[in-house]
Amino acid sequence: MYPKLSLHPAKRSYARGKLFWQCLNDANWLVYTSQAYDCIYEWLSREDRAFLNKELFRPMADFLSIENPQFFNRIHNHSTWGNAAVGMIGLVMEDEDLIERALYGLKNLKSNKISEDNDGGTIYSENQRAGFLAQIDEAFSPDGYYTEGPYYQRYAMYPFLIFAQALSNTSDLKIFEYRDGVLLKAVYALINLTNGSGEFFPINDAQKGMSFHAHSVVAAVDMAYYQSKDPSLLSIAKEQNTVTLDINGFTVARDIDNNKYEPYIKPSIMLTDGPNGNSGAIGILRSYNNEEETSLLMKYGKHGMGHGHFDKLSFCYYVGREEVIQDYGAARWVNIKQKDGGGYLNENKSWAKQTIAHNTVTIDEKSQFKASVKTADLFSPDSFFFSSDNQKVQVMSAVDENSYPGTRLHRTMILLNDSVFSKPLLIDLFNVQSDTAHKVDLPFYYLGQLLEVNFQLSDQKSQILGDDYGFQHLRVEAKGKSPENNSAQLSWIKSNKIYTLTSYSDPDDELLLTQIGAHDSLFNLRRDPGFMIRRNNSKNTSFVNTLESHGNYSPVNERPVNAYGKVDNITIIQNTQDYIATTIQLIDNSRWLIAISLKDNNKSITHKIDYRNEKISWQGPVLVKKFSK
Amino acid sequence: MYPKLSLHPAKRSYARGKLFWQCLNDANWLVYTSQAYDCIYEWLSREDRAFLNKELFRPMADFLSIENPQFFNRIHNHSTWGNAAVGMIGLVMEDEDLIERALYGLKNLKSNKISEDNDGGTIYSENQRAGFLAQIDEAFSPDGYYTEGPYYQRYAMYPFLIFAQALSNTSDLKIFEYRDGVLLKAVYALINLTNGSGEFFPINDAQKGMSFHAHSVVAAVDMAYYQSKDPSLLSIAKEQNTVTLDINGFTVARDIDNNKYEPYIKPSIMLTDGPNGNSGAIGILRSYNNEEETSLLMKYGKHGMGHGHFDKLSFCYYVGREEVIQDYGAARWVNIKQKDGGGYLNENKSWAKQTIAHNTVTIDEKSQFKASVKTADLFSPDSFFFSSDNQKVQVMSAVDENSYPGTRLHRTMILLNDSVFSKPLLIDLFNVQSDTAHKVDLPFYYLGQLLEVNFQLSDQKSQILGDDYGFQHLRVEAKGKSPENNSAQLSWIKSNKIYTLTSYSDPDDELLLTQIGAHDSLFNLRRDPGFMIRRNNSKNTSFVNTLESHGNYSPVNERPVNAYGKVDNITIIQNTQDYIATTIQLIDNSRWLIAISLKDNNKSITHKIDYRNEKISWQGPVLVKKFSK
Ligand SMILES: [Ca+2]
Ligand SMILES: [Ca+2]
Ligand SMILES: [Ca+2]
Ligand SMILES: [Mg+2]
Ligand SMILES: [Mg+2]
Ligand SMILES: [Mg+2]
Ligand SMILES: [Mg+2]
Repeated sequence: MYPKLSLHPAKRSYARGKLFWQCLNDANWLVYTSQAYDCIYEWLSREDRAFLNKELFRPMADFLSIENPQFFNRIHNHSTWGNAAVGMIGLVMEDEDLIERALYGLKNLKSNKISEDNDGGTIYSENQRAGFLAQIDEAFSPDGYYTEGPYYQRYAMYPFLIFAQALSNTSDLKIFEYRDGVLLKAVYALINLTNGSGEFFPINDAQKGMSFHAHSVVAAVDMAYYQSKDPSLLSIAKEQNTVTLDINGFTVARDIDNNKYEPYIKPSIMLTDGPNGNSGAIGILRSYNNEEETSLLMKYGKHGMGHGHFDKLSFCYYVGREEVIQDYGAARWVNIKQKDGGGYLNENKSWAKQTIAHNTVTIDEKSQFKASVKTADLFSPDSFFFSSDNQKVQVMSAVDENSYPGTRLHRTMILLNDSVFSKPLLIDLFNVQSDTAHKVDLPFYYLGQLLEVNFQLSDQKSQILGDDYGFQHLRVEAKGKSPENNSAQLSWIKSNKIYTLTSYSDPDDELLLTQIGAHDSLFNLRRDPGFMIRRNNSKNTSFVNTLESHGNYSPVNERPVNAYGKVDNITIIQNTQDYIATTIQLIDNSRWLIAISLKDNNKSITHKIDYRNEKISWQGPVLVKKFSK
Repeated sequence: MYPKLSLHPAKRSYARGKLFWQCLNDANWLVYTSQAYDCIYEWLSREDRAFLNKELFRPMADFLSIENPQFFNRIHNHSTWGNAAVGMIGLVMEDEDLIERALYGLKNLKSNKISEDNDGGTIYSENQRAGFLAQIDEAFSPDGYYTEGPYYQRYAMYPFLIFAQALSNTSDLKIFEYRDGVLLKAVYALINLTNGSGEFFPINDAQKGMSFHAHSVVAAVDMAYYQSKDPSLLSIAKEQNTVTLDINGFTVARDIDNNKYEPYIKPSIMLTDGPNGNSGAIGILRSYNNEEETSLLMKYGKHGMGHGHFDKLSFCYYVGREEVIQDYGAARWVNIKQKDGGGYLNENKSWAKQTIAHNTVTIDEKSQFKASVKTADLFSPDSFFFSSDNQKVQVMSAVDENSYPGTRLHRTMILLNDSVFSKPLLIDLFNVQSDTAHKVDLPFYYLGQLLEVNFQLSDQKSQILGDDYGFQHLRVEAKGKSPENNSAQLSWIKSNKIYTLTSYSDPDDELLLTQIGAHDSLFNLRRDPGFMIRRNNSKNTSFVNTLESHGNYSPVNERPVNAYGKVDNITIIQNTQDYIATTIQLIDNSRWLIAISLKDNNKSITHKIDYRNEKISWQGPVLVKKFSK
């Protein structure tokens, strides 16, 4: 019956299915149906089995592989589902041919008939490997990071894990030990890529709100626990508050009931990117204060293919359950028909992917790699330094030399804990060096209502900021100049918590208060605010910013607590090709001296600078030193 | 010592205090201190008592009354504190003179030296009564509604109740029975003026988020329970989760512990306004569906003096814990120094009080009463009809003939429950009649992200809508024209719930999508969206709108449920001086026929209209009739 079925009438997929509009959905169906079929396989009569195998399942497996190599034989989450579907039905039918095809891909293919998928991703390249093992090799970094980011990883994990479990039940292939146990590492990576609410950091194309409560993550955690018996996974399972209806979920539920769980403390961690782990990384610093998690993510990994954003060295920041500095996420309402059928909106490309939509520098009003996915996929930044052993001073630092040819971007982010602050102080040093002068824009997409700035603002009547690379979607509401002390301050309130950003600002800097949403009469974009430092004519320049989470307010008792931050001003005392040195002066007259070696990240080398007629020396790339008076 | 104290140096009050910057705060202090003093009065030596009475308390009482008649001798919440302070210290000292003064005011005053308070409120008028009993008479309507609204009532209740309790402990005055028990009615009114989250409806100057969790409301509920022993009050006390440390709180805590509480079901209720209950009203319709409270408030009461808004016939709407159609509230961050010292912002007057800031009609781009408080205080709309006995069809209807001289405004709001809707359908009929042609604007300040409209939108690049009466703060983001079926639809999503507004629209109507925040470079206003129907050249016109709360979405499972509403279109079949008749057609082809008698609100009179060659007749002012096909 299946062989005679024609293709689904909808023609918008690069790999049309038969039961559904794309092969992917047919493969989804087969992954689940294989499990159901396996349950009744022995109970069915031999004739029924033979009939189903011959008329439905084998033809379907062939359709999803031989007849659609552009779907089956690539390194992509679609193919993972295809591989798993073909392999799992092969395991049920004990069809070695299909199992082999699933594990190692189709052989002797000349080329695929279609060169690009619907997202503009490349399908075929020469000497490309294929099959499930190649997917495992290529899809994950050695740390279990999936290059498309956690939103897609959550979706991709299920076929990896369910086929792996099927293989480990039925074969000698020690698949969970394959590549140093990368499949289980991937489950931990996924958990570690969530904020204090269990939601995935919304890097790349990602709909906000997706979290470790998703069914596929419940399945992943249950499978990982069944394999590893790591008691900290039970804490995640407890928060998920549901289990899968199988031996994995049963084991989890039983062991929770027996109080075997231990806390899962999400760590500060650098997750390397790329199959070999040498294509940059995602850095995450975390701090716990009164049980509240503060998490800071900097993205310095790969572009991430068709769903990647031009967001190198961008960051997002969460305090407790609050999103404080946002990554916009995707411009899409998944499955909501009213919004272009639930697919990616035009504004995903025109805004959400562009560099200016991110908390990183945009040079000369153009996106990184001039917004070319093909170029972006060739490069990644390098980790310069990552140190999280000392909870008082955690640092991550990365360098990008490819996003803007001829320009070196070097960002260093520090989470500082000190008794003077109730929450960690975020310190951000962003150095931009080039032989030629550029316009540099650094935005901070804070969320909340602005309370106060310490500089004069003039109304800009929502003038539109530009006409390309996302600038066409930004309105300028108000504009100002640096105050005399070169330290612009902006404070805002969100969900009754109060934050203050202090920005070193040059006298010539333009300080812009923006709003997302110009050229968007369909309201596809959220009307969110931003603060942008625009620095013109820069060759070697540094942006130094601190962000404090300091206060709170209750509209019931109408009392603000710690309404003001502790940082008074920022001074840059040195800015050369080799060093940035800066002081952060607090209102209690204490000071922090921060210095970064920009070129040498050797941990054992000693550096020196002059500071107030003193020689200060330190070891390793970063100095963080407090002066009490 | 007190007599020699000079006035507080801050000069911004119309009645400067000694301990604090205004008499009000000195009076606050004395209300609390009287209670403390009473506790130790018998324990103190006769000499100490005499000293304190003579040197501190009696002079302070005189200062707050005789020396500041403009503070003490008016009908105002400030004076209530003044009366209570003087009376309570009088009760402690057994000073009959002070008690008399507190209850009945100062006698034989010629005039006050100051004619306006800091909010522009009138202080003195001839033959004005004064004192605590006059406050009770004047401040509350017979239903216990306080004309300044619940935000100020919450603050004002404490001196009323604490002084009343002191009086009832020590005198024969049956103060809690005074005026048919209005003080206890006021406590119920306060509770009934909260939404599904226990927050006060933010009419007039009110900071959002203030709720029955406020300390003063805890005290009010505990005192009311102690007096009435109404077990439903214990349910509110349970939600408050705290009690006062006195006999009232003790009684509440003990009786909760003994499980004496019964549910408090907030009713649909009309709270009349004005001392005689004939100055309009606040109408509230409520519906409970799956335990979720839907609440709809229409304001057709008095202006409410200095803190009133020009908002006659405006409404606000809540479903469950969500604010769906907002009243803006006040433009103020109480006690947040960063925002103009925590006082009212300029935008409170330039935006929040203006008619266009409210969900009611603005005529010819001017606020009601041309924004004159003095004129507005003279008039109030009239209730036309209020019916909440039938949970399936609840109706409130009110007429205003004074806000715009020569124009009659008549709004009728219906909450309809029918099995086809999971939540009530809100039906809104707004008739505007005048002998001359006017421009009429009717906005809906929906909260959330727009999903879709069923008409073409053209980008308006944030053009500013006007230059006065609040229009200067509105940007027009996009604009459209009525679709062919005269039924404009707008759907939006907020906190993963989906809503659809369907608006009857004339071919000449302008449909505007607006945003609050123009001319506000200090970001004193929230950037909230609005939808506005602008109808030009109207003499007798009706706006008919329906609002559905129909769907929900989860970003974790990415599935929308009931993403679309049930209303397909709206037809106006009759619009005369005497009747509006309209049909609401649903997508299942059933129809609702709604008709209103605009002039005759007699419940027993029979009306007739022709509809599809049928004579339809009904009794009373409102017809709501379903046709299944
Ligand atoms: Ca679109
Ligand atoms: Ca472009
Ligand atoms: Ca101001
Ligand atoms: Mg992004
Ligand atoms: Mg790259
Ligand atoms: Mg208002
Ligand atoms: Mg009035």
